[in-house]
Amino acid sequence: MKILKNWEVNMSSSFGKNIVVTIFGESHGHYIGVVIDGLPIGTQIDMEKLNEFMSRRAPGKNRFGTKRKERDLPKFVAGVQDGKIVANTICAIIENSDQRSSDYEQFKDTPRPSHADYVAYVKYGTEMDMRGSGSFSGRLTAPLCIAGGIAKQILEKKGIEVQSHISSIGGIRDVEIDYAKPDMKALKECEKKEIPVISEEVSEKIKQCIEKIRKEENSIGAEIECFATGVPIGLGEPNYDSFDAVLAKLVFSVPAVRGFSFGAGFDAVSMTGREHNDEYELNDGVKTTTNNAGGVVGGITNGMPIVFKTAIKPTASIGLSQRSFSISENVEKDLEIKGRHDPCIGIRILPVIESVCALTILDFMEN
Amino acid sequence: MKILKNWEVNMSSSFGKNIVVTIFGESHGHYIGVVIDGLPIGTQIDMEKLNEFMSRRAPGKNRFGTKRKERDLPKFVAGVQDGKIVANTICAIIENSDQRSSDYEQFKDTPRPSHADYVAYVKYGTEMDMRGSGSFSGRLTAPLCIAGGIAKQILEKKGIEVQSHISSIGGIRDVEIDYAKPDMKALKECEKKEIPVISEEVSEKIKQCIEKIRKEENSIGAEIECFATGVPIGLGEPNYDSFDAVLAKLVFSVPAVRGFSFGAGFDAVSMTGREHNDEYELNDGVKTTTNNAGGVVGGITNGMPIVFKTAIKPTASIGLSQRSFSISENVEKDLEIKGRHDPCIGIRILPVIESVCALTILDFMEN
Amino acid sequence: MKILKNWEVNMSSSFGKNIVVTIFGESHGHYIGVVIDGLPIGTQIDMEKLNEFMSRRAPGKNRFGTKRKERDLPKFVAGVQDGKIVANTICAIIENSDQRSSDYEQFKDTPRPSHADYVAYVKYGTEMDMRGSGSFSGRLTAPLCIAGGIAKQILEKKGIEVQSHISSIGGIRDVEIDYAKPDMKALKECEKKEIPVISEEVSEKIKQCIEKIRKEENSIGAEIECFATGVPIGLGEPNYDSFDAVLAKLVFSVPAVRGFSFGAGFDAVSMTGREHNDEYELNDGVKTTTNNAGGVVGGITNGMPIVFKTAIKPTASIGLSQRSFSISENVEKDLEIKGRHDPCIGIRILPVIESVCALTILDFMEN
Amino acid sequence: MKILKNWEVNMSSSFGKNIVVTIFGESHGHYIGVVIDGLPIGTQIDMEKLNEFMSRRAPGKNRFGTKRKERDLPKFVAGVQDGKIVANTICAIIENSDQRSSDYEQFKDTPRPSHADYVAYVKYGTEMDMRGSGSFSGRLTAPLCIAGGIAKQILEKKGIEVQSHISSIGGIRDVEIDYAKPDMKALKECEKKEIPVISEEVSEKIKQCIEKIRKEENSIGAEIECFATGVPIGLGEPNYDSFDAVLAKLVFSVPAVRGFSFGAGFDAVSMTGREHNDEYELNDGVKTTTNNAGGVVGGITNGMPIVFKTAIKPTASIGLSQRSFSISENVEKDLEIKGRHDPCIGIRILPVIESVCALTILDFMEN
Repeated sequence: MKILKNWEVNMSSSFGKNIVVTIFGESHGHYIGVVIDGLPIGTQIDMEKLNEFMSRRAPGKNRFGTKRKERDLPKFVAGVQDGKIVANTICAIIENSDQRSSDYEQFKDTPRPSHADYVAYVKYGTEMDMRGSGSFSGRLTAPLCIAGGIAKQILEKKGIEVQSHISSIGGIRDVEIDYAKPDMKALKECEKKEIPVISEEVSEKIKQCIEKIRKEENSIGAEIECFATGVPIGLGEPNYDSFDAVLAKLVFSVPAVRGFSFGAGFDAVSMTGREHNDEYELNDGVKTTTNNAGGVVGGITNGMPIVFKTAIKPTASIGLSQRSFSISENVEKDLEIKGRHDPCIGIRILPVIESVCALTILDFMEN
Repeated sequence: MKILKNWEVNMSSSFGKNIVVTIFGESHGHYIGVVIDGLPIGTQIDMEKLNEFMSRRAPGKNRFGTKRKERDLPKFVAGVQDGKIVANTICAIIENSDQRSSDYEQFKDTPRPSHADYVAYVKYGTEMDMRGSGSFSGRLTAPLCIAGGIAKQILEKKGIEVQSHISSIGGIRDVEIDYAKPDMKALKECEKKEIPVISEEVSEKIKQCIEKIRKEENSIGAEIECFATGVPIGLGEPNYDSFDAVLAKLVFSVPAVRGFSFGAGFDAVSMTGREHNDEYELNDGVKTTTNNAGGVVGGITNGMPIVFKTAIKPTASIGLSQRSFSISENVEKDLEIKGRHDPCIGIRILPVIESVCALTILDFMEN
Repeated sequence: MKILKNWEVNMSSSFGKNIVVTIFGESHGHYIGVVIDGLPIGTQIDMEKLNEFMSRRAPGKNRFGTKRKERDLPKFVAGVQDGKIVANTICAIIENSDQRSSDYEQFKDTPRPSHADYVAYVKYGTEMDMRGSGSFSGRLTAPLCIAGGIAKQILEKKGIEVQSHISSIGGIRDVEIDYAKPDMKALKECEKKEIPVISEEVSEKIKQCIEKIRKEENSIGAEIECFATGVPIGLGEPNYDSFDAVLAKLVFSVPAVRGFSFGAGFDAVSMTGREHNDEYELNDGVKTTTNNAGGVVGGITNGMPIVFKTAIKPTASIGLSQRSFSISENVEKDLEIKGRHDPCIGIRILPVIESVCALTILDFMEN
Repeated sequence: MKILKNWEVNMSSSFGKNIVVTIFGESHGHYIGVVIDGLPIGTQIDMEKLNEFMSRRAPGKNRFGTKRKERDLPKFVAGVQDGKIVANTICAIIENSDQRSSDYEQFKDTPRPSHADYVAYVKYGTEMDMRGSGSFSGRLTAPLCIAGGIAKQILEKKGIEVQSHISSIGGIRDVEIDYAKPDMKALKECEKKEIPVISEEVSEKIKQCIEKIRKEENSIGAEIECFATGVPIGLGEPNYDSFDAVLAKLVFSVPAVRGFSFGAGFDAVSMTGREHNDEYELNDGVKTTTNNAGGVVGGITNGMPIVFKTAIKPTASIGLSQRSFSISENVEKDLEIKGRHDPCIGIRILPVIESVCALTILDFMEN
């Protein structure tokens, strides 16, 4: 099998134009972390709130996530003093408490289906540390959440709120939310719930669904719906830096994302113009009666709430036997992935989606 | 109403890292055009084939599109001699034959619902030429197709094919295509059809649907499914320059796009890991039996066909009366948009989607 | 001789962050031109003034330049109506009136010393159009001057002036200018002069020098000193986007530039801190008594005049016999470059240097 | 005095296209560090050699530098295991052992001449940590040297050497070096010397000069000449990503740099074409007899040695009394900067210049 030469490697661990975020680290290295450039000097970070935000992503908090425990508390090593931003560039790191590598050995030769093992082998060769998926690990969304959590705090002071909920898991849908007037308070309350949905009834059904999936050593996908209110009109540019395109890129940079849609999204396929168009009304300013646009027309925010959906695939690591192959022997081979995995990774991804949304808004506002 | 200061304007008309595409022009200016940097010197462009490709996007070719006639043939003004690329940078322009502006006057004060009129007014003030939607016009996808058409030709010589079809309009779905082994020949034949679907029966139903929509002076959305075969393994990077994220940004840069998904896409929400995971098989190389990943794992192409869906919203311009408002008088006001509009803009967007797909693949290959 | 593969080509014809300038074209193609993104909508361009600015760069205007005549008047093909900017992106083109190619044939096999012929051959192969130096031609500074000329007009309305003079040619130096208080009026008058120096006496000496050089079919270098006054304090960023670094890159992108220095520049090598440091004085605001910093400290403008020097090499094309070699025969070979060449290209580069200075300032101001 | 709003801050702490380097930290924060993206996976870093390279920049190693002692040894926190690169992104940090801040208080109100104190105050307000010059500190060249030192090691394995010497301090010049055939061995030996010059006699004179300057509590500038041999032909692009322009930007990003020139540099101003042009000779391949081009024509490397000069200004911090002013009282005021400062910062900047040279070469090679 051909190994691509290393000097063809060309990747980017950064994003953003005005607020530039650079993440680093790999799943089983010493530290993972983030460098953020361009945040307003003088900003006071509420560390407790940030840690709470981080904990929504962290594994092990309840039986619907993985059992591994990671503390994932950020340590600011540059640009922050007494919680205040004092330099153009800040850096925070998170220690990887669990660096054991025993689990990974077998995947080096027998790549896990729907994981990056095999493409990484072909692209980078055997020297890359792929334990726990290395640079491809979902663990790298932790430093992303440090940046996103700070961005959320800055936006809140400007009256901009970003919240999300699980809109669907395994065919079970949460209650519908009015896109023109989302109930942000109800969404905020989802933060504290085991299953971040608005309806208690839906929560119970999802719990049963996940419990069943876990017992089968299987996994299940999820749909996340994210809202941002208070976003000013005028963010985004025509052509190739539109608000929705920039956000689409970031959302698709989150591992496990398979779909992204704005406002009415894929429902628009079957809608007529009369149904889909958002008529204007003068009601405490210029508003639209509906919000099928999800707050963005022509690539530019129109002052209505930002609304988008994200499709999350089922966790790729499952205990059930799957067909793979041996790279060295070039024969097909069955594989069982042992260990404790999230039956539904989607419920841990909400703060990540909120992070990329908040960072996109802030980046355009700092323009 | 507050007008944002012009110096806050900050936009990008360029994309790409190795093949850099810059588009310019506005709907009713003299010319629209494209500058492309980094195409292989010595490449012979098949001009007839390029014009055919362009004509798939051009309006007026049949009764299911708009009645306006635009020739939209590119004129190469730099970097090309006798159809051959002879410089690092090439430029092509298209004359705007129809620069009449009579239609637009009323929208200056009464913004069209779900158009960019109002946000453009707030962001840029009254000096911007918004006739025919100005810089926001779908007409700017014509120069994009020049770049995309050339990219497709270059890829074809490397054995890479990019084709698309309408997968759904108004609830009517085309036949299912095997994601692991798409029938590229059948897809290619769609190029010549009035309705670019594989099934003749579906075609008839869609024609009837669009005809009805047209008579009502309404419009309808569409879903496009795009495939690329022969794509080498290893394109894309982990983190923030993954193949899917880069493509997502470009797809969302196409006007009227409201959703983008890879492989199983939003269906993954209700799938289990066992259903969704693509098991390996050794069958004329390393393949996967299914292709729910759409050819990309961990952000990197895995050698399987690229498959993605795009949701296109219904044409925003409809003849039916809609509620808008008068900017100058600050009162609500009804609006009827006269003229001939596409009842289903989606069927003209296929070559645009193929263009951004081809350009993404080529950009990563030129790395 | 090994030819690098085309797919390794990777170049950029664009620069700027907020005002993005993309140039295109090659010396003997049909057109050269520029796309500019991000200029303030509503800006009225003074076309006469722009043409005057362009003519300072154009060849053939007097006996100290080349005898070729090029009109070099820009035609705006997008984004400009009646001289006013009406879109985010504008495009202007210049027709290449003289596309004869007879002169170049011999250089294909016998590369001109200190020209790009040979490196272009190795990098791009034989398909590249290198007539008149192709993409490497100084002719591409004409579209750059379109962008620069517009930027100068915008800055002037904000009270910012950018002017330059020849500070030295062949050891003959123009009068010294007070870096802390440059006489911008005297500098502006240089625009109209055959030799753009302040001193009439120096002008005469330089004319004699150039006349002698021309008769010998030789050429001579030049030093340009450029000034900008009225520049606000605070432009530029620490680290890798400092004002001086961004300008340095642009100045070094101008063909024939071999050196760039800020304020005291290379004289600082032999100065002590006491001599070099600019002490503060409160004199109609915060000023410095001297301006060895050239208006930039820590990468950020300090409100003092911007001052920088640029070293221009002698025109590489000379009539005198030079030793080269035949690529095909792999033997050394003498070469005489016939035709009419600028004996001192430096005197035509002033508007180019002013252009990159104006564009740098405007780009940071539009931030 | 007006304070610019924080949200206008927009800076970049990153550079590079294929090898992306991001530095972070401020002079008196906990750590400074660097994230490097895109280095070849599998590269073994020689840590001892890297530390030696770092020590050339570190202060306190002899009486010609400052007396402060900093260890400046990098600690790799991500992407490196047992000295081998195992991930796409690596991160190294350096602890700031000396975080005392007592010295800085007075400069908050009385800005140091030719330092960034005052512009930073106007641009960022009073919340920025400017102790030891904060983000503007020369200390941030330490993490840059981590990246540069690794780049040098990678280049060496490819037969590419990068070395520099002091070419001039205070009017005292080191021996001339043949630009076409630089003695890299003699240059390499400079690494170990107190004064990095080739001539022992020159070394003595410079020592006396610096000793005198130190006693006067003054400072002196320096010129650094840097060479790279073994660089392949074809690196760099025409127009705006030429080898010289990219390097110029990086060199000018190094604090205290006031001038940059390639090959003959500013001497070209007084040279004729006949003198300056580099004639070809076929001598063990295609060579030029002279190397006034410094290894770059048309923005592209021509296979000859890279040669460039950098002008370093005298250390701005001097003990001698200087005129400044009080920001709060708005009156002129004298200032004496106590503490131990480098009398000639130039001699510590050599590894920094070698770093940006090596990184530029590697970045273009990884293209």
